[in-house]
Amino acid sequence: MAAAAARTALARPHLPLPSSTRRSSRLSLTPFSAPGLRVGGAATSISAAAAPLQQQQATTPRLGDVIEAQQFDRDALNEIFEVAREMEAVERGSHGAPSRVLEGYLMATLFYEPSTRTRLSFEAAMRRLGGEVLTTENAREFSSAAKGETLEDTIRTVEGYSDIIVLRHFESGAARRAADTANIPVINAGDGPGQHPTQALLDVYTIKREIGTLDGIKLGLVGDLANGRTVRSLAYLIAKYQNIKIYFVSPDVVKMKDDIKDYLNSQGVAWEESSDLLEVASKCDVIYQTRIQKERFGERIDLYEAARGKYIVDKKVLGVLPKHAVIMHPLPRLDEITVDVDSDPRAAYFRQAKNGLYIRMALLKLLLVGH
Amino acid sequence: MAAAAARTALARPHLPLPSSTRRSSRLSLTPFSAPGLRVGGAATSISAAAAPLQQQQATTPRLGDVIEAQQFDRDALNEIFEVAREMEAVERGSHGAPSRVLEGYLMATLFYEPSTRTRLSFEAAMRRLGGEVLTTENAREFSSAAKGETLEDTIRTVEGYSDIIVLRHFESGAARRAADTANIPVINAGDGPGQHPTQALLDVYTIKREIGTLDGIKLGLVGDLANGRTVRSLAYLIAKYQNIKIYFVSPDVVKMKDDIKDYLNSQGVAWEESSDLLEVASKCDVIYQTRIQKERFGERIDLYEAARGKYIVDKKVLGVLPKHAVIMHPLPRLDEITVDVDSDPRAAYFRQAKNGLYIRMALLKLLLVGH
Amino acid sequence: MAAAAARTALARPHLPLPSSTRRSSRLSLTPFSAPGLRVGGAATSISAAAAPLQQQQATTPRLGDVIEAQQFDRDALNEIFEVAREMEAVERGSHGAPSRVLEGYLMATLFYEPSTRTRLSFEAAMRRLGGEVLTTENAREFSSAAKGETLEDTIRTVEGYSDIIVLRHFESGAARRAADTANIPVINAGDGPGQHPTQALLDVYTIKREIGTLDGIKLGLVGDLANGRTVRSLAYLIAKYQNIKIYFVSPDVVKMKDDIKDYLNSQGVAWEESSDLLEVASKCDVIYQTRIQKERFGERIDLYEAARGKYIVDKKVLGVLPKHAVIMHPLPRLDEITVDVDSDPRAAYFRQAKNGLYIRMALLKLLLVGH
Repeated sequence: MAAAAARTALARPHLPLPSSTRRSSRLSLTPFSAPGLRVGGAATSISAAAAPLQQQQATTPRLGDVIEAQQFDRDALNEIFEVAREMEAVERGSHGAPSRVLEGYLMATLFYEPSTRTRLSFEAAMRRLGGEVLTTENAREFSSAAKGETLEDTIRTVEGYSDIIVLRHFESGAARRAADTANIPVINAGDGPGQHPTQALLDVYTIKREIGTLDGIKLGLVGDLANGRTVRSLAYLIAKYQNIKIYFVSPDVVKMKDDIKDYLNSQGVAWEESSDLLEVASKCDVIYQTRIQKERFGERIDLYEAARGKYIVDKKVLGVLPKHAVIMHPLPRLDEITVDVDSDPRAAYFRQAKNGLYIRMALLKLLLVGH
Repeated sequence: MAAAAARTALARPHLPLPSSTRRSSRLSLTPFSAPGLRVGGAATSISAAAAPLQQQQATTPRLGDVIEAQQFDRDALNEIFEVAREMEAVERGSHGAPSRVLEGYLMATLFYEPSTRTRLSFEAAMRRLGGEVLTTENAREFSSAAKGETLEDTIRTVEGYSDIIVLRHFESGAARRAADTANIPVINAGDGPGQHPTQALLDVYTIKREIGTLDGIKLGLVGDLANGRTVRSLAYLIAKYQNIKIYFVSPDVVKMKDDIKDYLNSQGVAWEESSDLLEVASKCDVIYQTRIQKERFGERIDLYEAARGKYIVDKKVLGVLPKHAVIMHPLPRLDEITVDVDSDPRAAYFRQAKNGLYIRMALLKLLLVGH
Repeated sequence: MAAAAARTALARPHLPLPSSTRRSSRLSLTPFSAPGLRVGGAATSISAAAAPLQQQQATTPRLGDVIEAQQFDRDALNEIFEVAREMEAVERGSHGAPSRVLEGYLMATLFYEPSTRTRLSFEAAMRRLGGEVLTTENAREFSSAAKGETLEDTIRTVEGYSDIIVLRHFESGAARRAADTANIPVINAGDGPGQHPTQALLDVYTIKREIGTLDGIKLGLVGDLANGRTVRSLAYLIAKYQNIKIYFVSPDVVKMKDDIKDYLNSQGVAWEESSDLLEVASKCDVIYQTRIQKERFGERIDLYEAARGKYIVDKKVLGVLPKHAVIMHPLPRLDEITVDVDSDPRAAYFRQAKNGLYIRMALLKLLLVGH
C-alpha cells in the first residue's frame, strides 16, 4: 500500500448538499487504512449519527468517498482524469502482464436496484486492476433489507467483508448515509433521483478526451433536461471551467429547471434555450443527447410521444455538426439517435461508455491505494 | 496440498440427526482428494442411497462436510476456533501479501433461497484465502430445479465444476442429502427450518473471543426462542462446555421448546425461564437477543406486536449489564436492540457478523487443505 | 499471447444459416487482437449492418465466434477435442499449480434467460484457466434491455468491459447478431429455439471420449425429437462422420422432423424410426435419452403424460445394452432415466455434464489465445 499517498485536497462543495449538511469542509482521496483498524471508528460514527445534527457539522470528517459530482474541484478532476488516462495503458496491457495494483482488495457491489451497465463497468474496473469482487445484483429483494434491516446495519455488516462498497440505491441520499456509517470508502453508483457522480465524471472526461480541452467548450444539452440526472450533473461540473457556453434544447414539458439556470448564472456561465437543434449543432463542440423517460409521463402517453420525436440526432444533424465535434449520450438510447449515426467517427457514445471503465479504475485506485 | 493434513476426530453426534440416520460414527475435517479421483465414489454413493436404510449405517463413511452444529465436539470446536483466530491475521495481511492458501480452488455457492449476508461472507472468506467463486443467488427460480431436477442431480453436476459446495436450501435435510451425494465437501449454509451450523459456530466463537472463555458462561437467550434456529443451535453447542447457566427470556407465545430443555437437562446444563430481562442482564456474560419473526404469526398481527415490544435491549439494559459482558444478535435486527446501544463497546453484534468471515475462512481451509 | 496461433480453417457451413446470410465463407478460431485495437472495426461493422444485405456477403469477415454447431468441420472438431482432452490435466492440476493461460482475460456471461448449469460451466471453465468473469444472471429483466435498448447497443457497451462475451438469449439468431456487432469473440450459449453449439460439441466429444471413435457409431436418439434442440444439433454434427447409423425412438407427437431426415439423407447417413426401445438399445453404442418438455403440450396434459411414460431408460434397457455402450442425457432429467441406472458404469450423463467444462475450457483457450 502506498503509505505516502498524495492527499488531493478537494474544495468545499459549491452547492447545498442534497440530503444532509453533515459534511466536512474538505474531502480527500486519501486511501483507507488496513481492515484491522476499523472497529473503533465504526462505533464512533454510529454514535455521532444519533447526536443532534448541529453538533456534527465539524465532527464527522469523512474521507475518501465519492458521493456527488459537486465534491470535486478542478484540481481533483484533473488528478482523476490523469489517472484515468493512465488506466487505458493498464487495460491494454491486461493480457500480457495484468495489473496487481489492487491485488488482495475486495470490492462489494451492493445494488438495491439493477443497473447492469454500471455494475459491470465497476466490476471490470476492479478486475482490470487485479482486485476481486463480491456481487449483489438485486439487494433490495434478496437481502435482509426485505426483513426490515436498515441500510446502516447492512453497511456495517458488508464493510466487514470488503475493502470498498459501491452502492446503488433507490433513495436519494442513501450513498451519503452509507458513507457516514462505513469505515471503508463508499462510491455512489446512483441513488435514485439523487446523484450518479461517476457518470458525471466520465461525461466530463469524455469531453476532454475527445475535444482536448474543457475551457471554452460549447455544449448542447438535448432531450429530457428536467428529469435527466446526467445533464444536471454535467451542467454543475462543466461550470467549473472557463468560458463555457451551454445550449438547452428540449421539449417544453421537460425543460431545464431554474435551480440549474440560477446556478449557472451565479458561476458566470453563459446559457441559452433554443428550439432549433440544427442551428445549435452547427455551433457546438459537443451535442449531449438524452432519452425522454417514458415513466415520467404517467398516463399522458400523448405528451410522451410528442416530446420523444421532437429532437432526434440523425444524418441531418451530422451534416451541420463541425468536423471536430462529437455526439454523446449516457445510454441506453432508443431512437433519439438514429443508428445510421453510429458509424460516423463523431459518434462518441460507445467510447464514452468505455471511458466509464477508465474513470472507475481511476477512482478505485485513488481511493484504495492513492495516486 | 497438505497431504499429511491433521485428522481431526469429531465425536459421534449427541443427538438424533434431523433427517437421516445415515451418518458414520466418526466425522473428520480431512481434506478431499484431487478432482480426478472422484468418479467412482459418486456411483457408489448413489447406489448406496437406493439400498435399504438399515444396511447403510456403517457403509457410507462421509468425510469433511459441515452439516449440523451437533457434529462438532469440543476438540473439533477448538481446532476451528484456533484456525479462525489465525484468519484474522490472514485478512489483515490481504493487501500487502494476499493469501494463496486456496489458490486454484473453486467454491460454488448454491443458494436456493436468497441470503445475501451469508453468501457474501462465504464468498469473502474464499477470496481472502485466494480462492475463486461460482455464484448462484437464486437457484430455486433460475436453475433446472424449476424444471423438476432433483437436488441430487444438481449436486452431481455442480460438483463437476467446483471443489466445494456451499448450499442454502429451503428444505430441512437438504444439506445432508447433498453431502450424501457429493464427492466434494458440502457446507450447510442453512436448510430451511433445519440447521445453520456456521452461524452456531460463529456465535460460540464470538462468546469465546469476547469473554475469553466458554466454560462457566452465563447466557441470556432473549426473543423468539421457539422458532429461532440460531438460539436452538447455540443451546446445543454451548452445552458441550462446563458449568453453563442459561436464562430464557421470551414472550409466552414463542417460548423455548421442550426438546431443548430436555437436552440441556440430559447434559446437566442449568437453565431457568425468566420474564425479567433487567434482572437477567445484570447476571449474564452474554445477552443474545433475537428478532421476533413476524412471518410466524400469520394473521395474528396483534400477538406479533405484543411479543415484539416485550423485551427490548436498550440503554436501561446496558445500565445493569456487567462491564465485561456483551450483547449479541444474529442480525438482521429491527428495533429489538435500539440504535443508541450500537456505540457501547459491549454491543458485539457487528463484530459477531465479522467473526462469520473468520469462521468460514477456517472451515474452507480445514475442508480443502487441512490444518 | 500466442501471436503465432495456429489458424484453424473451418469449412463453409453445410446448411443455410438460421437468421442471416451475412457470414464469411471461412471461419477461424484465430484469437483476437488486443483491446486497444478494436475501436475502428466496431464502426465499420455497424456501418456494414446498415448497408443492403447483398453487398455484405463478402464484406463482413467475422472471425473467432462460436455461433452454431454447423460451423465446425471434422478438422475443427478434432482440434477442439484434442484441446478439451488436454484440459482434463489442466483441471486436475488446478490446486497445485493453477493455470495462468487466461490470466488477465475477462469473460462476460450475458444471460438474457437463466441457465445455471450452462453459466456455471462456462464460468468454471474460465476460472480453471486463470481468467476472470463478469456475470449477468438475468439480463432480460435487470439490464437496460428493459428500457428498450437493442441487443446491439448492449453488446457494444459490454465489449468495452470484457475480452469475450458468452451470450444466452431467448431469441433465435441473437448470437449471430451479437457476433456481427462485437469486435471481441462471442460464444452462443443457447439462443431460444435456435442453437446451443457448445452442448452439441460436448455431446459429440462425450461419444468420442466414451466409445473411443465417432466413425461407425450406432446412435439411438430417444424422447422428444421434435423440440429437442440437442438431438437435432447432434444429428447434424454426427453426420460429418463415416458410417453412422441413427435410430429415432419417440412418441408420435414428438417425432423427428423432416428437415433433419432430409439432411441425413443428403449426407448419406442411414437412419430408421423404431418404437422398440429394447431392440434399439441392444444394437447401439449410444442411447441418447431426452426429456419430454411439458411446456410444449400446452393444455393437453393427457398427451404429455402419455408421451412422457412411453420410453424410459431403466434396468431392463441396461439388461440388453452392450457392455461397451453408454447412456447419455443433456440434463436436467425427470424420470425418463430411473435413478437405479445411475450407478451403472454405462450411465455417462454426469461425465457428459463434466465434459461441458472441458469443451468450454478448450473453446475459451482457442478463441482467446489460440492453440
